[in-house]
Amino acid sequence: MSAPASLQVGLVGLGRMGRRHAENIAFNTPGATLCAVCSPLAQERDWAQQHLPSAERYEDYQALLRHPGLDAVFLVTPTALHGEQIIAALRAGKHVFCEKPLSLDLEECQRVAAEAARHPQLKVMIGFVRRFDASYQDAHRKISEGLIGAPFMVYSQTADALDPDGFFVRFAASSGGLFLDCSVHDIDLARWLLGADQPVRVMASGVRAVHHELEAFQDIDNGVAICEFAQGRLATFYASRTMAHGHETMTEIVGTRGRLSVGANPSLNRLTIADAHGLRNECTPSFIERFAEAFVAEVRHFVDAVRYDTPLALTLQDAIEATRIAAAMRQSLLEQQPVQL
Amino acid sequence: MSAPASLQVGLVGLGRMGRRHAENIAFNTPGATLCAVCSPLAQERDWAQQHLPSAERYEDYQALLRHPGLDAVFLVTPTALHGEQIIAALRAGKHVFCEKPLSLDLEECQRVAAEAARHPQLKVMIGFVRRFDASYQDAHRKISEGLIGAPFMVYSQTADALDPDGFFVRFAASSGGLFLDCSVHDIDLARWLLGADQPVRVMASGVRAVHHELEAFQDIDNGVAICEFAQGRLATFYASRTMAHGHETMTEIVGTRGRLSVGANPSLNRLTIADAHGLRNECTPSFIERFAEAFVAEVRHFVDAVRYDTPLALTLQDAIEATRIAAAMRQSLLEQQPVQL
Amino acid sequence: MSAPASLQVGLVGLGRMGRRHAENIAFNTPGATLCAVCSPLAQERDWAQQHLPSAERYEDYQALLRHPGLDAVFLVTPTALHGEQIIAALRAGKHVFCEKPLSLDLEECQRVAAEAARHPQLKVMIGFVRRFDASYQDAHRKISEGLIGAPFMVYSQTADALDPDGFFVRFAASSGGLFLDCSVHDIDLARWLLGADQPVRVMASGVRAVHHELEAFQDIDNGVAICEFAQGRLATFYASRTMAHGHETMTEIVGTRGRLSVGANPSLNRLTIADAHGLRNECTPSFIERFAEAFVAEVRHFVDAVRYDTPLALTLQDAIEATRIAAAMRQSLLEQQPVQL
Amino acid sequence: MSAPASLQVGLVGLGRMGRRHAENIAFNTPGATLCAVCSPLAQERDWAQQHLPSAERYEDYQALLRHPGLDAVFLVTPTALHGEQIIAALRAGKHVFCEKPLSLDLEECQRVAAEAARHPQLKVMIGFVRRFDASYQDAHRKISEGLIGAPFMVYSQTADALDPDGFFVRFAASSGGLFLDCSVHDIDLARWLLGADQPVRVMASGVRAVHHELEAFQDIDNGVAICEFAQGRLATFYASRTMAHGHETMTEIVGTRGRLSVGANPSLNRLTIADAHGLRNECTPSFIERFAEAFVAEVRHFVDAVRYDTPLALTLQDAIEATRIAAAMRQSLLEQQPVQL
Repeated sequence: MSAPASLQVGLVGLGRMGRRHAENIAFNTPGATLCAVCSPLAQERDWAQQHLPSAERYEDYQALLRHPGLDAVFLVTPTALHGEQIIAALRAGKHVFCEKPLSLDLEECQRVAAEAARHPQLKVMIGFVRRFDASYQDAHRKISEGLIGAPFMVYSQTADALDPDGFFVRFAASSGGLFLDCSVHDIDLARWLLGADQPVRVMASGVRAVHHELEAFQDIDNGVAICEFAQGRLATFYASRTMAHGHETMTEIVGTRGRLSVGANPSLNRLTIADAHGLRNECTPSFIERFAEAFVAEVRHFVDAVRYDTPLALTLQDAIEATRIAAAMRQSLLEQQPVQL
Repeated sequence: MSAPASLQVGLVGLGRMGRRHAENIAFNTPGATLCAVCSPLAQERDWAQQHLPSAERYEDYQALLRHPGLDAVFLVTPTALHGEQIIAALRAGKHVFCEKPLSLDLEECQRVAAEAARHPQLKVMIGFVRRFDASYQDAHRKISEGLIGAPFMVYSQTADALDPDGFFVRFAASSGGLFLDCSVHDIDLARWLLGADQPVRVMASGVRAVHHELEAFQDIDNGVAICEFAQGRLATFYASRTMAHGHETMTEIVGTRGRLSVGANPSLNRLTIADAHGLRNECTPSFIERFAEAFVAEVRHFVDAVRYDTPLALTLQDAIEATRIAAAMRQSLLEQQPVQL
Repeated sequence: MSAPASLQVGLVGLGRMGRRHAENIAFNTPGATLCAVCSPLAQERDWAQQHLPSAERYEDYQALLRHPGLDAVFLVTPTALHGEQIIAALRAGKHVFCEKPLSLDLEECQRVAAEAARHPQLKVMIGFVRRFDASYQDAHRKISEGLIGAPFMVYSQTADALDPDGFFVRFAASSGGLFLDCSVHDIDLARWLLGADQPVRVMASGVRAVHHELEAFQDIDNGVAICEFAQGRLATFYASRTMAHGHETMTEIVGTRGRLSVGANPSLNRLTIADAHGLRNECTPSFIERFAEAFVAEVRHFVDAVRYDTPLALTLQDAIEATRIAAAMRQSLLEQQPVQL
Repeated sequence: MSAPASLQVGLVGLGRMGRRHAENIAFNTPGATLCAVCSPLAQERDWAQQHLPSAERYEDYQALLRHPGLDAVFLVTPTALHGEQIIAALRAGKHVFCEKPLSLDLEECQRVAAEAARHPQLKVMIGFVRRFDASYQDAHRKISEGLIGAPFMVYSQTADALDPDGFFVRFAASSGGLFLDCSVHDIDLARWLLGADQPVRVMASGVRAVHHELEAFQDIDNGVAICEFAQGRLATFYASRTMAHGHETMTEIVGTRGRLSVGANPSLNRLTIADAHGLRNECTPSFIERFAEAFVAEVRHFVDAVRYDTPLALTLQDAIEATRIAAAMRQSLLEQQPVQL
């Protein structure tokens, strides 16, 4: 049996994550060819010309979709564009990988789902990268094998390093706020690791500890939430923008016979320093370093699923549920009341 | 200057914790003499005769209070007796150390406080032992010194090892439930470490993961709660009765310039094992082992405070606040609504 | 400036490490093309046909060297073949990457060095992979930056998981023994991290704790050695074949103002398990998992150095010194005397 | 059965360790009474008057030995005095606890042993405190239970924090040097944990990394040694005076089915800090903090053994063997040759 032809991929958006995905597709993914890239910015297209010379460059998304032989698109664009771009790609007959979140708007999520349902032969995946991290994969496998008995509780946090420039503050208006930007990852992990399909109620709270200017956006820089699922399952979430030591993604899953933790020490690497500051290790500065390998595995998974027509690890419905729960958490924060789901 | 005479101490209640306190007073506390013990059980008094021969034995609490020269009593008795026993001791002119919690009933707490106010020369302390643990002391000192900037958030958990015999289940009726029995410690730590005096609102949830028979007591075996304090301070609590690996008390304090964690690894000691199970350490089986040294420090602190008439590290009001918040958490759990404080 | 053409690489030897290198060259290395592979075994060539279809397959090494346009060879062959194969490649005008060790025989090492000196335009590198590991790179960088003051001591160990099949025992005759097979890595690290060029004296000892049949080969399964370098620098080595928990490569570098450790916990990933065995993490089963990323970085370094004609991170002389010191350790073990260098 | 009378103890030497032992005997040891102390320094006797008022103070050792009712002496005096003071105590009919090392001189060790043999009813114990540390006790128990199969190798280190004042340098002339001062502990642990009675050969090396003035005493500030025991058992030792992060006593025991480590992280307590320096913990500044509880356990063990006439955990012969091996290590260092034992 001969392997299918190399998947012809076009990538849209060449910001930090876009460039990362582009290089992973081009140099780290057997069976994929990065044949086209698209950015409205001349500077980003210049970068592509130098670093990805074999990819055709486009300024316009519709033009990229007409690239000869194109099989699939990777959308690494602002969240507000996701919905229409996915729908356009599907209508052009292309498989779609899109960065998280699918959308901040539940109706738009449903429109995308409806369109996808009209193209059952096309794959659509939202990039919940943590599912492809080796440690989270290992946790999921061990739970499936029964190592911790019946899992019933998750604690999961996304804690970003403090950015003294307040870069993210300028995007607070469009990010959907802390829970929709950060906690969607944790929500997706909780659903996946607990096997919990029915959220029942959320309660949230939060503070502005450092970035007081977030008040203008009704946003917070540290928030916690409890999410109750059906059948006695429970999740607690914490998200922060203000860590001094780096990025720390951490998740605990408690079962009736044990507990798993992923990321209890956000170590940068295997180096330990013993000096006047004590015994210490440096930490991952951002999710980019933390999930460097998972981003590769994620792309490989998508490419393989398309080439061999195998099921994707996560569905559009998973992405919609993460948005739905995160939106309820934001509502609970603003209304200072539990929100039923 | 000569040191004050040795403090003459009478101890009431010779269960597991009572015996522990008795031995600490008798053998580990400079400046204290265990002159009397009291238990209604002949078996416990026999134990005392053998192990604490210099202490007079009493069956009756009132008789113990009349022991010649008695300066102070240690109450290690069922919670339901705390209020009346403290009041009786104060009226007899004795200093009082009482195991936590002060009471499950807020009115009784207030009665005790009122009686204590009538005896300003007598010391009364409730045994929130964690404040005397070297690691928690170190955390508090570092916060005071500004190491983590302004502290604004606490995550604190009390997670007990699963007891296959369900010992605690039989006491569920009188324990006040998971939050009043376990989380009071975490609440007290959060108040102390955050310097947070005004609780505003609590939200709680919980499950019965293993001990389904707790339903009869409207109790749970795993619970979480969020407590909002004034001035943008926040605490999240977790309590569990079902850990597979042992007892794990853990607390994180997040500040604007750093985070402290106490008990991230509940290691039994400094031994690490590398074998077919991986790299591992055994864990503290219960709070008794975890806080063995803190129980000594707590007694020494109380004895010194009485002998030298120096302030106690915690006040009756601290104990009342812990009960008040824990009771609100239980109410929130039962009513499935946030509770304002 | 346009990038140089893709480097045409032929790989020789398709055992476990050969396949790993082949896939890394083919799918993970920008600027390299795996154009040819060579193995005397039909089964291995069949594997290549399926997994590396674009690479021409050869049974004979000389034929591979004549592959049109070939720029460089990767030798992943038995140690006994390294010398002659490197020399043949150099004479054919090819750059050479060769797996460690260069040779067990110092005279052969010198013959290779002499031949390499006749081809200054060709790159030759021996695969001391640990130098390309991110944690070791970080350690070296921090030492260069002065973080630990003047480094003066190294402790380094290579401890392999016990192989109940005793696979390595069958190769004891040709491996050169524990020190030449395993400790060469640690020796190279010590020289690199200490900046120590002149070994002065070695003393070694060892035992057969499990594999008593190694006596026939005058080999051991656990050994230690001390190596003194000029200018008051010192290294201690430990090598083992009998670990129960997995493969553990660990190195400590002590300086006048601090100490660095690489690999203090040989964790498989970021997962921690809390269960009846305590708090634990699984460990890397072998060097393959431990150095998976370093093998990629190593290949990329070699390919870049050839394409851009930049210096290699390590020289043939480095490889020869590692062999020379390891051979002295073996001699010290056998003669039960220190050996001067 | 009534308990024996309280043991009447006299303590000699009120330096840092002497005061520590005195307070442990006086306040932490059931069944012991500190009835007398002895110091040639008025300042130390004044300290005792204030802190240990119930103990009679002596300037002269012989006078202390005549204290009415004295049962046992604790010698916390300069090493050079140990031999004669132990012998004098034995002749006066007193049980003896003496701080390590017994002596730097093997002949004196033998004289003490000979005298002790003449008083079989008297207990003599040298304070190898690590045997009483809970973690080392746990290690020994687990080895006895077979957890790691047959133990065959030990790595043990005593690494002291750098003392910028070079306090210990002034005592280099009388300390016996690094190995006799520090490594005796590790030697004793290796013998105990391996159950290894017959040392065969030692090889040692060392450097002066910081304290170059030690050259005048033929001493070093960092040293390593290998000790071969009979029956294929092996130990490697490391001692240092120059750590930047604190005191680090660490011991690994390797067996055929696993490995134990004691002290892999010399954490001061259970506090972890996450800040701009990374994730870190402070370390034990000296052996005093590291072994605070073991010093208590050691005294209790000795007192119980005397009161109940039970065997001591370690014999005079153990102490002599530690000195014998450490002396051979020093000889190997000076002669630059292995030393047979």
